[in-house]
Amino acid sequence: MNEEKNRKPVGICAAPERPEVSQAVIRRLPRYFRYLRELIRQGKMRISSGELSAMMKVTASQIRQDLNCFGGFGQQGYGYHVNYLYTKICELLGVNAGNRAIIIGAGDLGRALVRSSMFEKRGVEVIAMFDVAPELIGHESSGIIIRDMKELEEFCSSLPVNMAVLALPKDQVADAAGRLVRAGVTGLWNFTGRELDFDPEKVTVENVHLGDSLMILNYKICRQAENRKKAEAAAGNKSGSQSI
Amino acid sequence: MNEEKNRKPVGICAAPERPEVSQAVIRRLPRYFRYLRELIRQGKMRISSGELSAMMKVTASQIRQDLNCFGGFGQQGYGYHVNYLYTKICELLGVNAGNRAIIIGAGDLGRALVRSSMFEKRGVEVIAMFDVAPELIGHESSGIIIRDMKELEEFCSSLPVNMAVLALPKDQVADAAGRLVRAGVTGLWNFTGRELDFDPEKVTVENVHLGDSLMILNYKICRQAENRKKAEAAAGNKSGSQSI
Repeated sequence: MNEEKNRKPVGICAAPERPEVSQAVIRRLPRYFRYLRELIRQGKMRISSGELSAMMKVTASQIRQDLNCFGGFGQQGYGYHVNYLYTKICELLGVNAGNRAIIIGAGDLGRALVRSSMFEKRGVEVIAMFDVAPELIGHESSGIIIRDMKELEEFCSSLPVNMAVLALPKDQVADAAGRLVRAGVTGLWNFTGRELDFDPEKVTVENVHLGDSLMILNYKICRQAENRKKAEAAAGNKSGSQSI
Repeated sequence: MNEEKNRKPVGICAAPERPEVSQAVIRRLPRYFRYLRELIRQGKMRISSGELSAMMKVTASQIRQDLNCFGGFGQQGYGYHVNYLYTKICELLGVNAGNRAIIIGAGDLGRALVRSSMFEKRGVEVIAMFDVAPELIGHESSGIIIRDMKELEEFCSSLPVNMAVLALPKDQVADAAGRLVRAGVTGLWNFTGRELDFDPEKVTVENVHLGDSLMILNYKICRQAENRKKAEAAAGNKSGSQSI
């Protein structure tokens, strides 16, 4: 039992009285986290739902609805306590819950991720990177050692890991993900584009499909160009008919 | 007029009879694109809404509703023509519309993006990368030359560019985005995390907030760990009471 105590717990959120929050609200909270972080950086202590609404470009009523579950603040005429709200959102989302991550794949993407401050800001500790390429193994990237994929199981048994970032080639992901889950990893951040099939009760997969985002942008650029052409044609017709 | 004809048009989608599709459906279409691509790769000619439903893990009725707008296929007992559906979705989303992209920032992220096949698969041509670092300028990454940011305006005036990928540091993005828009770029794919403020009628900004996705994963890992603990505690209590 004493040994258990000495071991740093992973994956336990410090939210003993976690409010019940819908999945839709949960999905929106990271955005509030970003804005509140920025307000703290600016030294702002409180903010009205109206100001937050203008800043975030969502309606004030949506904001009140989203933040209602935290209770006890956001009074009429006073606004929200920025720090309190930030702390509550962090607790709810498990920021600083002590989750430990490893990155699988030390190519450009893996290195871009390990160099970003994204993990640290969210209280997730990146403790290793893994790759199969001999020329990468043993090197460091942002102070994180690149290890041989062969050592994966041994590493995970020596130091509990609950998150893995899948930044490896698509055709290797099924095998790697299977090994990670058997080694006790319960969360996979999947950049490969290949869908993974695990029991969602046991393993969480968060997929990042950058190509989908690119396609939406591509579509919008096309629509804009069309609308511009239509508007120009309409303006042309109008000026044409006026000149007759 | 003849000069105009010789110029390759950019940003014009080959969809003369574009169906009216809601924004919610548009947002879901890139996922169909991915699955249909995979079916084509497997040589599958047709698929029922039931099969597609099992594969994509959405209800068959949702699929019928989403794809209804394309009309004329998906008959009872026959299913969807995979190629036809893929072609229609590509037309609607502007795949191969000839959009040209440049990448701003030739760091790890910029290089990871330029090396991926994502752009090519969606018919977007990446024609250059830009950076301010003298040690990078003039080098190539995946056959794409890294140019000096100073040359940005000159480059965009010589070859129309309508998309820019913002993979540069946060504190440089406002200046770069302003220059890009003034140089005629109408679509910004923003990886910096900094929000950009342009008239949405004129400039489309598609933001990628990887940190938000990481936070959701972190949250779900925490919830899972809690649920597991609760279940273990409940099982412990149960076996305890049975042993009395």
